Amino acid sequence: MKDVAVVGVGKTRFGAFPDRDLRSLAVESIENALSDAGIGPDAVEAFYLGNFAGPSFTGQSHLAPYVAAAAGIHGVPASRYEAACASSGAAFHAAWQAVAHGIYDTVLVCGVEKMTSQPTARVAEILAMAGDVAAEGIPGATFPAIFAMIARRHMYQYGTTREHLAAIAVKNHGYGVTNPYAHLRKPITIDQALAGKPIAEPLTLYDCSLVSDGAAAVVLKAGKKGVRVLACAQTSDYVALRDKADITHLPAVKSAAEAAFKMARLTPKEIQFAEVHDCFTIAEILAVEELGFCAKGEGGSWSWSRPIPVNRSGGLKSKGHPVGATGVAQIADVSLQIRGGAAGWQLPNVEIGLAQNLGGSGGTSVVTILGRNGTT
Amino acid sequence: MKDVAVVGVGKTRFGAFPDRDLRSLAVESIENALSDAGIGPDAVEAFYLGNFAGPSFTGQSHLAPYVAAAAGIHGVPASRYEAACASSGAAFHAAWQAVAHGIYDTVLVCGVEKMTSQPTARVAEILAMAGDVAAEGIPGATFPAIFAMIARRHMYQYGTTREHLAAIAVKNHGYGVTNPYAHLRKPITIDQALAGKPIAEPLTLYDCSLVSDGAAAVVLKAGKKGVRVLACAQTSDYVALRDKADITHLPAVKSAAEAAFKMARLTPKEIQFAEVHDCFTIAEILAVEELGFCAKGEGGSWSWSRPIPVNRSGGLKSKGHPVGATGVAQIADVSLQIRGGAAGWQLPNVEIGLAQNLGGSGGTSVVTILGRNGTT
Repeated sequence: MKDVAVVGVGKTRFGAFPDRDLRSLAVESIENALSDAGIGPDAVEAFYLGNFAGPSFTGQSHLAPYVAAAAGIHGVPASRYEAACASSGAAFHAAWQAVAHGIYDTVLVCGVEKMTSQPTARVAEILAMAGDVAAEGIPGATFPAIFAMIARRHMYQYGTTREHLAAIAVKNHGYGVTNPYAHLRKPITIDQALAGKPIAEPLTLYDCSLVSDGAAAVVLKAGKKGVRVLACAQTSDYVALRDKADITHLPAVKSAAEAAFKMARLTPKEIQFAEVHDCFTIAEILAVEELGFCAKGEGGSWSWSRPIPVNRSGGLKSKGHPVGATGVAQIADVSLQIRGGAAGWQLPNVEIGLAQNLGGSGGTSVVTILGRNGTT
Repeated sequence: MKDVAVVGVGKTRFGAFPDRDLRSLAVESIENALSDAGIGPDAVEAFYLGNFAGPSFTGQSHLAPYVAAAAGIHGVPASRYEAACASSGAAFHAAWQAVAHGIYDTVLVCGVEKMTSQPTARVAEILAMAGDVAAEGIPGATFPAIFAMIARRHMYQYGTTREHLAAIAVKNHGYGVTNPYAHLRKPITIDQALAGKPIAEPLTLYDCSLVSDGAAAVVLKAGKKGVRVLACAQTSDYVALRDKADITHLPAVKSAAEAAFKMARLTPKEIQFAEVHDCFTIAEILAVEELGFCAKGEGGSWSWSRPIPVNRSGGLKSKGHPVGATGVAQIADVSLQIRGGAAGWQLPNVEIGLAQNLGGSGGTSVVTILGRNGTT
C-alpha cells in the first residue's frame, strides 16, 4: 500500500445558517481545502461526498456531481456515500483506500449537511431513519430514546452515573469555547448539565449533540508530505438495537478499532488525543471503551479523569453535528492538531491522533488514525 | 490491475409488489447471487449498495448495513452509493475498482429500489430530485419534461422524428416479452406508441420507462473465472440542463465510454450487444450516439435499423426501472447473455457486451464492458 496524507483541510463554521444552502456550504469547505493544499479543482481525480439526508433535509438528490460541478470539479467519478451519521467517514474510507491502492493520486472528500431549515419534529423524524424505522422509529423511539435505553443499561451493568454523563457535556462544552468553528461556544457547569431539560430519561438537553449546518473537506494525496493516514477501517453491525446481543456494546467500533490499530501497528495507549462520536454523552463513553482506551464499563470514570484529550474540538456536543459533515470534520480537526494548525485550541506536542465516526446506534463505524510525518 | 469477473448474478422480478419491502427484495437478489456464485455470505469482504431514494420512497436510511445484516453479511464495510439513476452503476464501479486493485478478492454489489408504495405525484417529485431541484423541479420540470425538451431539441437539430422514438418503444416492448423478469411483457405497435397518452410533448406514455420495484445483485471476484469485466468507467457532468452547452449531448456518457473503450482496448464496432439507459426513448438515442455506435444525430435512424441488439432485456421501458437497481441489473443481464444464461431471451453467439447507466439527465454516467473469458 502507498503512503497517504491529508494535504489540505477546509471547513465552514458549524451553526444554524438560515441564508446558506447545502451546496454553498460544501463548496466553501472544498475551496478552503483546495486552497490549503495549494491545488486547483482540476487536480482532483475523484470526488467523494458524504451526506446523510440531503434529499430529506433539502429536497435535492444526486448531490455529488451537483456539488462537484459548482466547485469546478468536472468529469471525474463523483458519488455520494450514505451510512447514516458515518456517511463522510465512509466516504473518507473509500477515498483513502483508492489512494492507498494506487487508483488515484489526488482525491477530495467532502462531508456536508444542512439541517436547520426543517422544523425540530421533522429533524427528529429524519434522524430516526438512521435506525430501524419499522422496529424503532414508527413505534416511537427517536434517537435520544435509543441512546437513553443504552445509557440506562450501561448504568445498570457498570454503575455509570448521571454525573459521568454530565461530566462529558461539561468537558466538551468547555473545549468548544476556544474552537472558532464550533456551533455553541458556551461553557456549562455540572449542575447545569444535571439540571438540563429532560429529553429522554436519563438524557437531558446537555447530553444531546446539536442540530447544525456545516461542511468539511480534506484533500488526500499519495506520499509522505502532509498529515499521514496511518490507518482507516470501516465495519458494520446490526442497525436495530433489538438485534444486538448487548446494547452497551458497539461491535462495529470495536472491530474497526482493532483493524485500524493492527494496520497502524499501534496500541490504544499510543493515541495522544481523539475525536470521538459523541452524538450523546453516553456514546462518548461507549466509544472510549470500544476503542480500547479503557476496560468495558469504565468509560465513565476514565472520561472523568481525562487521561488524554477527547473531543478537544468540542465534539458533536459543542462543535455541532451536521450529520454528513461529522466524519470528515473529525479527521480535519485531528489533522489540524497534528500539524499545529488549531489556532486558539491547539494541543501541545501531539503527533498521533484518532477519529471515530459512528452511524446510527452502531450499524456503521469508521476509525481513522493519523500521525505526523516521521512518527511511525 | 487484476482481472475481475462477475461470478454470481441474482435478480428479483421487476414489477409492482405491494406486499414486498425494499429489504426483502434486496435480500432475495443477494441470496440468488451468492447461490449462483456458490459461496456463502461469509465470503463477502465488502458490501456495495446502490440505492437512489430509499429514504424518500420507504422512510429508511442507513440501508447498506440494514440490508447486509439481513442477508447474513456482517462486520464488513457496507456503504450506500447514491448517484441518482446511476446509483448502482456507481456502486459497481467502486466495487470493481476495489477488486481490480487488490483491496478485496470477493465483493457483493446490490442495487435496489422500492417505488410503487408512493402515489404517482410523489414518485414524480422524488424522481425530480435527481435533477437540479431549484432550477428545474420547483419551476415545474418533471423528468419527462426535461427529456421532452431534449427530444424537441434533438428533432430540431438532427431531424429525429416521433417515429424514431416510437420505434424504440416498440423494439424494447417486443424484446421484454420474452424476459421472464421483465415488469411489462406486452408487445406494442408503432401506431399504439404514436397514439399514446401525451405525457410531455413530444413524449407519450410509451416513451417513458416504468415505475417499478426490484433488485439485482452481482458477486465480483478477482481472477479469470466467470464473465470478465473488461472495463468500467464513471464520470460526471452538470446536473442542471441549463448549465450544458448543448442539451442533446451527454458529455458524461461520452467520456465514460471513451475511457472504457480505451481500458478494454476495444472500439464501439466490437460491441455485439448493449443494455443502455432508456429511461425515455430519446435517452436511448442519445446513448447510442454518445457510446459511438453511430455519429451524433443519427441515433434515431441507427436504432431503427437495429444493427446490434440494444436492450434485449426489454430495457428500462419494458423490463422496468427500479431506479437504484437499474445499473446492476444491466450488468447482470449482459453477464447472463455472455454466459448463455438468458433462458428464453438468449442472444446467439455473443461474447462482448456493454452496459450504460445514466444518472438524472446526465450528471453521472457509468459504462461497463463485459466479455467472455478468453475473448480479449
